[in-house]
Amino acid sequence: MDSKKAFITGAGGFIGTNLIKYLISKDYHVTAMGSGKIEPDELKPMGAGTWIDGPVTLHNLKQLSLQPDYIFHCAGSGSVGYSIENPYADFQSNASSLVELLEYVRIHSPGSKVVYLSSGAVYGGNSKIPMSENDIPMPVSPYGHHKLIGERICKSYSQQFQIKTISVRLFSIYGEGLKKQLLWDACRKISSGNYEFYGTGKEIRDWLHVDDAVRLLELAVKNADINSPVVNAGTGFKITIREILEEIFEYLNKTGQPEFLQKSRAGDPAQFLADVTTANRLGWSPEIDVSEGLKRYVSWFSREELNQK
Amino acid sequence: MDSKKAFITGAGGFIGTNLIKYLISKDYHVTAMGSGKIEPDELKPMGAGTWIDGPVTLHNLKQLSLQPDYIFHCAGSGSVGYSIENPYADFQSNASSLVELLEYVRIHSPGSKVVYLSSGAVYGGNSKIPMSENDIPMPVSPYGHHKLIGERICKSYSQQFQIKTISVRLFSIYGEGLKKQLLWDACRKISSGNYEFYGTGKEIRDWLHVDDAVRLLELAVKNADINSPVVNAGTGFKITIREILEEIFEYLNKTGQPEFLQKSRAGDPAQFLADVTTANRLGWSPEIDVSEGLKRYVSWFSREELNQK
Repeated sequence: MDSKKAFITGAGGFIGTNLIKYLISKDYHVTAMGSGKIEPDELKPMGAGTWIDGPVTLHNLKQLSLQPDYIFHCAGSGSVGYSIENPYADFQSNASSLVELLEYVRIHSPGSKVVYLSSGAVYGGNSKIPMSENDIPMPVSPYGHHKLIGERICKSYSQQFQIKTISVRLFSIYGEGLKKQLLWDACRKISSGNYEFYGTGKEIRDWLHVDDAVRLLELAVKNADINSPVVNAGTGFKITIREILEEIFEYLNKTGQPEFLQKSRAGDPAQFLADVTTANRLGWSPEIDVSEGLKRYVSWFSREELNQK
Repeated sequence: MDSKKAFITGAGGFIGTNLIKYLISKDYHVTAMGSGKIEPDELKPMGAGTWIDGPVTLHNLKQLSLQPDYIFHCAGSGSVGYSIENPYADFQSNASSLVELLEYVRIHSPGSKVVYLSSGAVYGGNSKIPMSENDIPMPVSPYGHHKLIGERICKSYSQQFQIKTISVRLFSIYGEGLKKQLLWDACRKISSGNYEFYGTGKEIRDWLHVDDAVRLLELAVKNADINSPVVNAGTGFKITIREILEEIFEYLNKTGQPEFLQKSRAGDPAQFLADVTTANRLGWSPEIDVSEGLKRYVSWFSREELNQK
């Protein structure tokens, strides 16, 4: 069997790099596009056939002239805070870049199946949990609005031009190598003796390990179709911020307790939990439970910290 | 009382030019931005203080350095057919240009109130009539999707940055001077003896005269707020395509009958009727009924045709 051709945008990001490794392990031929140069030394172990440095524009895509079987559109900023500071740039990276990509597909590669990386942030202020794909989205940040706009762009291209698309609403994705967001900040703070955190600790979260996430992305893109379905990517298991932090204290062998400032950051939802029935129906379920995943993360963090010393 | 400062984008279009005349008559100081040059001879009778030739970009807006009380964002393509042929350009003109505008407002003129010209096309395949602002939008064309995306961009900027916005969903707008769409095509066909038309003739439409539309736009922009309300702009009176054409036959003194091809054009909805309760609550109701408006239109068309000979 010929190996399938995969094209990944935003390939230098946390999900992108993990996805490349996974797809290579499954015998895909991978072309990767990201911002920033990657040295051949770094590229080779990742196994990607080609690396293109540049933003996702119709012009850049035309230069490539690819006709991939599957496109994973991982490009896009992934931060609520960034979108509040830079709504214009966030719109460009989360919505406009997708139009550029789908326009390329429409004109030059209409047979490609496309997965768009959306976010659980689209549910926003709709506080019903668990959150199901048919619930009314109520984004509470530019990031959430822009991701929902991306889903609509997929729908428009699917409906009008029969492009096969699918949107995956990622909940909190984490894993070894992630040097931002709660887990990274928490490990750094706790290991340096700072135990203060935003919020109340009672916030509900749904943390999905990146290994599980990339398996779902591969399955999702195969299920892309002209109805442009939407799929939640979470575990369906809830954990509070306090519980997460207490586990991190334990795995770092710290005896303290987190102290909560009782005020939230803008755009932080109170509760955030995926209904994963749709993903289950595709034949997927998460394999790494959050305690195991957190142990792996903290263990990686500790090695990382040692290497810095 | 100082005259209020109004800024109009897409000012060279059908609604834009009519809006300028109306605002001037109400003592606004008007700055107009559109594509294409306008000669001083044309500009003066319109009464607009300034005309800027160029697309709505943050860069162009910064050159202007305006701080208008009211902004009427009339820029944007207005054709379903165009959006199917040119989805990329349609996205740029209906969605991206709005982000450029609101970003300018956010940074340089946060006190400006903004009205976005959306469309009844956002209802699309939701065939319940009359269509009310709380109904679920189900666009069936890139144009409809892009207008709905525009509304979401307004919501995002209002919610996050307290910019005062409002979206007005225009139904079928017509009036003397409009040289495109059904009425223009119909007048030309019928007067040349071609009586064939797409569809069945039973399609329901809601035709709003541009004089009524611009009155509502002025009222709407004053009601822009941080909840980013949405208002239908139609008459609430239904008329079928057959009835419209029969009136045109009559006013053109033709004795024939329209013949229908029994097939629709892509993106043409079967029925299209506004619930105008929200606009009524703002204190607006249409003043020109469709028969009177059609008479005025056909009369203008006949003069126009004579001038061409």
